[in-house]
Amino acid sequence: MGKLKGKKRYKKLGLAPGSVIYTGDKSSKKLFIEAFDYNIEQCIDKELNNVEDIFEFKHIDTITWINLNGLNHVNEIEKIGNHFNLHPLVLEDIVSISQRPKIDEYDDYLFVVLKMLYQDENETIISEQVSFVLGKNYVLSFQEADGDVFDTVRDRIRHGKGRVRTMQADYLLYILMDAIVDHYFSIIESLGEKIEDYESRIFSGHVDKSINKDIQDLKREVLRVRRAIFPLREVISRIEKHESPLILDKTKTFYRDIYDHLIQVSENIDIYREMIWSLMDMYMTTISNRMNEVMKVLTIMASIFIPLTFIAGIYGMNFDYMPELHYKYSYFILWGVMIVLFIGMLYYFKRKKWL
Amino acid sequence: MGKLKGKKRYKKLGLAPGSVIYTGDKSSKKLFIEAFDYNIEQCIDKELNNVEDIFEFKHIDTITWINLNGLNHVNEIEKIGNHFNLHPLVLEDIVSISQRPKIDEYDDYLFVVLKMLYQDENETIISEQVSFVLGKNYVLSFQEADGDVFDTVRDRIRHGKGRVRTMQADYLLYILMDAIVDHYFSIIESLGEKIEDYESRIFSGHVDKSINKDIQDLKREVLRVRRAIFPLREVISRIEKHESPLILDKTKTFYRDIYDHLIQVSENIDIYREMIWSLMDMYMTTISNRMNEVMKVLTIMASIFIPLTFIAGIYGMNFDYMPELHYKYSYFILWGVMIVLFIGMLYYFKRKKWL
Amino acid sequence: MGKLKGKKRYKKLGLAPGSVIYTGDKSSKKLFIEAFDYNIEQCIDKELNNVEDIFEFKHIDTITWINLNGLNHVNEIEKIGNHFNLHPLVLEDIVSISQRPKIDEYDDYLFVVLKMLYQDENETIISEQVSFVLGKNYVLSFQEADGDVFDTVRDRIRHGKGRVRTMQADYLLYILMDAIVDHYFSIIESLGEKIEDYESRIFSGHVDKSINKDIQDLKREVLRVRRAIFPLREVISRIEKHESPLILDKTKTFYRDIYDHLIQVSENIDIYREMIWSLMDMYMTTISNRMNEVMKVLTIMASIFIPLTFIAGIYGMNFDYMPELHYKYSYFILWGVMIVLFIGMLYYFKRKKWL
Amino acid sequence: MGKLKGKKRYKKLGLAPGSVIYTGDKSSKKLFIEAFDYNIEQCIDKELNNVEDIFEFKHIDTITWINLNGLNHVNEIEKIGNHFNLHPLVLEDIVSISQRPKIDEYDDYLFVVLKMLYQDENETIISEQVSFVLGKNYVLSFQEADGDVFDTVRDRIRHGKGRVRTMQADYLLYILMDAIVDHYFSIIESLGEKIEDYESRIFSGHVDKSINKDIQDLKREVLRVRRAIFPLREVISRIEKHESPLILDKTKTFYRDIYDHLIQVSENIDIYREMIWSLMDMYMTTISNRMNEVMKVLTIMASIFIPLTFIAGIYGMNFDYMPELHYKYSYFILWGVMIVLFIGMLYYFKRKKWL
Amino acid sequence: MGKLKGKKRYKKLGLAPGSVIYTGDKSSKKLFIEAFDYNIEQCIDKELNNVEDIFEFKHIDTITWINLNGLNHVNEIEKIGNHFNLHPLVLEDIVSISQRPKIDEYDDYLFVVLKMLYQDENETIISEQVSFVLGKNYVLSFQEADGDVFDTVRDRIRHGKGRVRTMQADYLLYILMDAIVDHYFSIIESLGEKIEDYESRIFSGHVDKSINKDIQDLKREVLRVRRAIFPLREVISRIEKHESPLILDKTKTFYRDIYDHLIQVSENIDIYREMIWSLMDMYMTTISNRMNEVMKVLTIMASIFIPLTFIAGIYGMNFDYMPELHYKYSYFILWGVMIVLFIGMLYYFKRKKWL
Ligand SMILES: [Mg+2]
Ligand SMILES: [Mg+2]
Ligand SMILES: [Mg+2]
Ligand SMILES: [Mg+2]
Ligand SMILES: [Mg+2]
Ligand SMILES: [Mg+2]
Ligand SMILES: [Mg+2]
Ligand SMILES: [Mg+2]
Ligand SMILES: [Mg+2]
Ligand SMILES: [Mg+2]
Ligand SMILES: [Mg+2]
Ligand SMILES: [Mg+2]
Ligand SMILES: [Mg+2]
Ligand SMILES: [Mg+2]
Ligand SMILES: [Mg+2]
Ligand SMILES: [Mg+2]
Ligand SMILES: [Mg+2]
Ligand SMILES: [Mg+2]
Ligand SMILES: [Mg+2]
Ligand SMILES: [Mg+2]
Ligand SMILES: [Mg+2]
Ligand SMILES: [Mg+2]
Ligand SMILES: [Mg+2]
Ligand SMILES: [Mg+2]
Ligand SMILES: [Mg+2]
Ligand SMILES: [Mg+2]
Ligand SMILES: [Mg+2]
Ligand SMILES: [Mg+2]
Ligand SMILES: [Mg+2]
Ligand SMILES: [Mg+2]
Ligand SMILES: [Mg+2]
Repeated sequence: MGKLKGKKRYKKLGLAPGSVIYTGDKSSKKLFIEAFDYNIEQCIDKELNNVEDIFEFKHIDTITWINLNGLNHVNEIEKIGNHFNLHPLVLEDIVSISQRPKIDEYDDYLFVVLKMLYQDENETIISEQVSFVLGKNYVLSFQEADGDVFDTVRDRIRHGKGRVRTMQADYLLYILMDAIVDHYFSIIESLGEKIEDYESRIFSGHVDKSINKDIQDLKREVLRVRRAIFPLREVISRIEKHESPLILDKTKTFYRDIYDHLIQVSENIDIYREMIWSLMDMYMTTISNRMNEVMKVLTIMASIFIPLTFIAGIYGMNFDYMPELHYKYSYFILWGVMIVLFIGMLYYFKRKKWL
Repeated sequence: MGKLKGKKRYKKLGLAPGSVIYTGDKSSKKLFIEAFDYNIEQCIDKELNNVEDIFEFKHIDTITWINLNGLNHVNEIEKIGNHFNLHPLVLEDIVSISQRPKIDEYDDYLFVVLKMLYQDENETIISEQVSFVLGKNYVLSFQEADGDVFDTVRDRIRHGKGRVRTMQADYLLYILMDAIVDHYFSIIESLGEKIEDYESRIFSGHVDKSINKDIQDLKREVLRVRRAIFPLREVISRIEKHESPLILDKTKTFYRDIYDHLIQVSENIDIYREMIWSLMDMYMTTISNRMNEVMKVLTIMASIFIPLTFIAGIYGMNFDYMPELHYKYSYFILWGVMIVLFIGMLYYFKRKKWL
Repeated sequence: MGKLKGKKRYKKLGLAPGSVIYTGDKSSKKLFIEAFDYNIEQCIDKELNNVEDIFEFKHIDTITWINLNGLNHVNEIEKIGNHFNLHPLVLEDIVSISQRPKIDEYDDYLFVVLKMLYQDENETIISEQVSFVLGKNYVLSFQEADGDVFDTVRDRIRHGKGRVRTMQADYLLYILMDAIVDHYFSIIESLGEKIEDYESRIFSGHVDKSINKDIQDLKREVLRVRRAIFPLREVISRIEKHESPLILDKTKTFYRDIYDHLIQVSENIDIYREMIWSLMDMYMTTISNRMNEVMKVLTIMASIFIPLTFIAGIYGMNFDYMPELHYKYSYFILWGVMIVLFIGMLYYFKRKKWL
Repeated sequence: MGKLKGKKRYKKLGLAPGSVIYTGDKSSKKLFIEAFDYNIEQCIDKELNNVEDIFEFKHIDTITWINLNGLNHVNEIEKIGNHFNLHPLVLEDIVSISQRPKIDEYDDYLFVVLKMLYQDENETIISEQVSFVLGKNYVLSFQEADGDVFDTVRDRIRHGKGRVRTMQADYLLYILMDAIVDHYFSIIESLGEKIEDYESRIFSGHVDKSINKDIQDLKREVLRVRRAIFPLREVISRIEKHESPLILDKTKTFYRDIYDHLIQVSENIDIYREMIWSLMDMYMTTISNRMNEVMKVLTIMASIFIPLTFIAGIYGMNFDYMPELHYKYSYFILWGVMIVLFIGMLYYFKRKKWL
Repeated sequence: MGKLKGKKRYKKLGLAPGSVIYTGDKSSKKLFIEAFDYNIEQCIDKELNNVEDIFEFKHIDTITWINLNGLNHVNEIEKIGNHFNLHPLVLEDIVSISQRPKIDEYDDYLFVVLKMLYQDENETIISEQVSFVLGKNYVLSFQEADGDVFDTVRDRIRHGKGRVRTMQADYLLYILMDAIVDHYFSIIESLGEKIEDYESRIFSGHVDKSINKDIQDLKREVLRVRRAIFPLREVISRIEKHESPLILDKTKTFYRDIYDHLIQVSENIDIYREMIWSLMDMYMTTISNRMNEVMKVLTIMASIFIPLTFIAGIYGMNFDYMPELHYKYSYFILWGVMIVLFIGMLYYFKRKKWL
């Protein structure tokens, strides 16, 4: 979840603003750079070995998407930054992986940071920071490591599916962000399923005590997903209102569609948050119900046998003069009395619905 | 409740924006199209067999309502979309059945999505998405499947009841939405009754443990109805403020009336939400009260008979020299003592109000 | 509290907008109409037998207050509506008794709906809907049934007390609304007393289990009073900002005074709401305290007598060789030991503060 | 705390607006009027016996502060009102002691109502309403009864300390309000101490059951202090933005300082409010912890002696053929077995950390 | 945490506004003043012995940072105030150490107060108030005592690291505030770790009763850190919008970066706040779970041995005619019956999952 790790943060304490320091923990990752350069007629798609190979794409008229994986390669990122005239604070944010989603509007480019959420094979939610720079004719994207949700975008560019090849760079940024937001839906779905799963486990009583901790962890997870997604609404709404040739009017309709999806995701998250709070209450009543049951067993056993034991105790006394002891049928009569008492008690508890 | 279903969502992952994919689960429904074409003097009302039959209605001066049931028929919907110049994202939203209520204002038409809520024969709340396109002289409506709340509207158009035949298309959209909102009242009523029913069940103590799960489910239901209704307020208020010949000033008074009803429904929902939260607390105190009762029975039985059994135990001892054993009336005196103790105990618990 | 009743609502389902249908349950009430017509010099005050008698008052220069009791008389109300050019939706709202407080500003009149709250002889809070139409020179008021809080207003008009006879219709509307708002204070006072009463009952422990339900009902009552009062703030604030000859500037100071009172009432309601929530917690701790007490009695009794009974059991055994049985003072020594144990136990529990 | 008292409120029901009725309960207080009249050179300071003595101060150029104690003297207050041209609603508010803090801006004066909070000798928080009228060259202040927080202000005026004698009436109003707000700090401090005191009492376990009620009362007190203080922020902020010669620009810096203090007080109150809510939860866990302890004692006693008693019971049976009874060391062996069992049990409970 | 201390506050009651009174508790601290005076070419850095040595720096063109430690030296601070024309209220705020974070914009300087948070060697969070005055070419800073987070800033100025030596005074203020905000990250990290630590302690069951108080203290700590940090967002955002030569446009980008960090910190704090609330619930369920276990032990012991004791009691009775007593194998059969019962009971409890 990209939570703030102690040691990394401290590394940044005392550094000058704009210091480009990678704060993540994947420092041994290999650098990977790919470029897509296209217009309506053609599309070049290649892996670059050298940061310098990027530079040629800046001024040509075709649309270019350059994607870089490996935020630990700060030198290369600084070189790109210099070539594209990025502000030092932008470079600092790109490699600070606990940056919250935001947009910064500069004169000749937009800088967008957001969180790409997806599940790994263990259904753990992975949050990877992605930064975009949208300039005239190009989009730069920066990811912490390999693996992303953009494969269908690559496919659409390569084979000219959809309208991407006929549109400008603002539309390219849109479909990249759309791919990320589409994945949020599967994240919240899996959160929803987890909640329902916990509910039925608690309800069925098949819980061990760790449910306590599990609920707390789920709560934390929902709060963190919330924090990754909610600020993005403001980002999109700023893009929609942005006034510059970087964002064309006809593309704004598409951004409005992302905004719409984000609202939907947000509403779901807030419902989940509310549901989780009541899980704990639900668990508490379950515990109390179980204690009630334990108490009933004890009470029934004790209430039935303690009086009977008392009666037996009476006739175990050693007084010289206890007339009942000498009647022939005393013993059997007593058994009769005790059985009647026993059945009476059972009937009483039955009526009280304790049995 | 039209909640996000895992498989369907995933189907959409990676698709280009504007892909018209039906996300519901009623894929075998037959297509049904009906058209009402009227002015103050006459009204034509027919079922259409062909999507192409719709097209003639677009440019004539009479008001036309075209209603389509069967969102699985995406090809036909795309044909309509092309003919009426609808934006691809509009078509995508029409067939995405988990779309949240919203309005999109395009140059020559308004697009409105909302949720039609009604109860089926088992009193389950059904949420069906309805989309409207309001153009000059026409209203298009799209429903997932047959069955709706518009029968009285059809009747009023056919027989010229009320003022619908004297008004424009904006008024037609109004009475359709009004019919939907009027049904929200019966939904929240039934939610209110459910809450009161749970309250009295919990209060009377006639609850099995499933009440726990029932409350949680009710909470979820209220939250979902809330999510279906609340965004509609913004939609209506946008219509009221809309500046174009599509919405006439004199019709805005009517939309304000819907807005007013929505606020009323919303306030009710928020009261219900608050009431449900305290149901759980109420249940918890009920459980505790019941445990108190169980404990009292145990305590009374044990407190009365344990001391008496002790006394009996004393005179069951086998010491050679125990003077009381040999007095003639010892046994009877002891019975007296025990009866006095017994009554004293009962009196004590009576005074403590435990009996 | 005028809550939504199932059958009435359904009656309205499917009706054309502007249908004037009474939704209350007092359909057998007699119609009562009274008129006050006054200026600074004179005051006519009479009961009218005929709706048509109202019409003459519309155009004369004196100020007129027409009050109608009996919303079931929809025909008469429609006649008035036609004569005063009221919008059909206004008429619909007048007779829809679960309308939320609101103001609608029309070209030549203002329409205000609000709730008159008062307590009947059983201290039940009654909510009656009152509608006002403020036109040039006249105020119309519509009530569901006889009985209101306006008697002092009638008195002031008749006898020229205060400044009402020297002012315009906007001031008349003001003193009518002021009379209603003044009554809100006694309503919230009685809610406050109820809460304090519950608190002391719970605290003193003199509660039966119905307190549970009582708290829930009180919560519901506070939420409903809240809903009746809160929207009125917006209504008054809209009057204050209203720009037309209907509301004179010098009268706005007076409306600001009502606004001020409403804020005060609202703050009280929100404090009550918060207090009620903690009543439940308070009750829960009370139950737990009581269970603690029950458990202590049980534990003390059991802890004292179970070990003593064990000792008695030992000397009730029938072993051939048990030396203690044959010593002369064994029995008395044993009694001593048991008494010491008994006192020791008592002392132990005393020190633990359980006694 | 100046809470709404039943009888007083009802007294006002049905009265014309602007009726000057004292709503407090100190109706036998003597009237006290004092006047300070000063400029940079001199200062007159006298007690007035007659309301009419005030009038001379209105038009002279020196700054005048007139303070009146005794809101029950409504006639005198009305005389002042007439002389200074105060609106009837202002006079009504001055003597309505449950008025919420507010500012009313009239053409030639400002009217401010607020709450003076201080603690009496029993540390009870007293809330007294104070009203101010700020005109050109004068400030009027109205208090319910004798005793206030203005002594240091009087001192500063008399002896020309600070800058008050060099400034206008707006600065005089400022230092009066500043004195009131400064006292809020000691109120919230004492609330904070109460909360910490309750916390340690609950934590240490030295609580009787009344803690329940105490917490509820504290909650109510905090909510009421909150209600007395929070609206004042809006009042000050309105003074800061007020545009008229009544408030000079250079004085606004000082009002901003009060605002700043109010925000600080408000933040503290909201923290206290949150802390109080968790006191109840803390108390609840304390009760449960105590019950746990009680249960452990019972369980240990019962679990140890019930099995031992059973064994003793076995050898108290009267079967003709029970071989153990006749072995010479049976009795001693049995003792050994029972002691081993006893120690085993103790060890078991020790290991479970119940001892 | 700089919480309001009773005695200090009272000291200020009744003082004239602008009275420069130190409200902290470090009144014996030595005065320490240091000055940095630099431009792109050179940097003077010296400790000053005399307040008067500061004055020369005011009008020269180089950028000057003067830092003063020791708020108890009010006379010296007043001298500085007079020389730099600071408003009396500014001086009052500088030495009032419980001032909330704020900005005051004066004509020729900005005054900023905020809280420097850091942990001492015991991991206690220390909050020290720092005030800044930003004028043309100079920044003044005031601290309560020695020790701060500015060492890296001093280093950067001395050795010309980063861009500080090439920028104006607004950038100097920025890097000082940035150093403070950077430290907030380590504070919230340590809060986060504390919460997780409490969670695992509660979950593992290794809690003594003081956890109760610990949670309450942690809650208070989070609320206080919140109060120290949240108002700073408004401060920064006011700097960003400030229009005067004091803040250059190119520096605003840097302030936006601080703002961004503050939002991130704030979000974390609010998540922690929510997590802490559920700690208490988690603890409560843990207690209840433990009570359940205690009850189970008791119930199992009692349910098994009470019936067996009853049976033994039966055959301890002294009736003359009890046939079973005289059969040869009665005793052994009885043992068999009791062992079967015993095992049956164990099996029953096993199946109920109580064992
Ligand atoms: Mg994150
Ligand atoms: Mg830094
Ligand atoms: Mg940054
Ligand atoms: Mg990646
Ligand atoms: Mg999408
Ligand atoms: Mg809870
Ligand atoms: Mg709870
Ligand atoms: Mg939905
Ligand atoms: Mg997509
Ligand atoms: Mg869409
Ligand atoms: Mg349908
Ligand atoms: Mg309707
Ligand atoms: Mg609760
Ligand atoms: Mg209708
Ligand atoms: Mg209506
Ligand atoms: Mg209605
Ligand atoms: Mg009436
Ligand atoms: Mg009033
Ligand atoms: Mg109502
Ligand atoms: Mg009145
Ligand atoms: Mg008033
Ligand atoms: Mg008050
Ligand atoms: Mg006083
Ligand atoms: Mg002050
Ligand atoms: Mg609670
Ligand atoms: Mg502080
Ligand atoms: Mg002061
Ligand atoms: Mg200050
Ligand atoms: Mg320091
Ligand atoms: Mg920083
Ligand atoms: Mg709680």
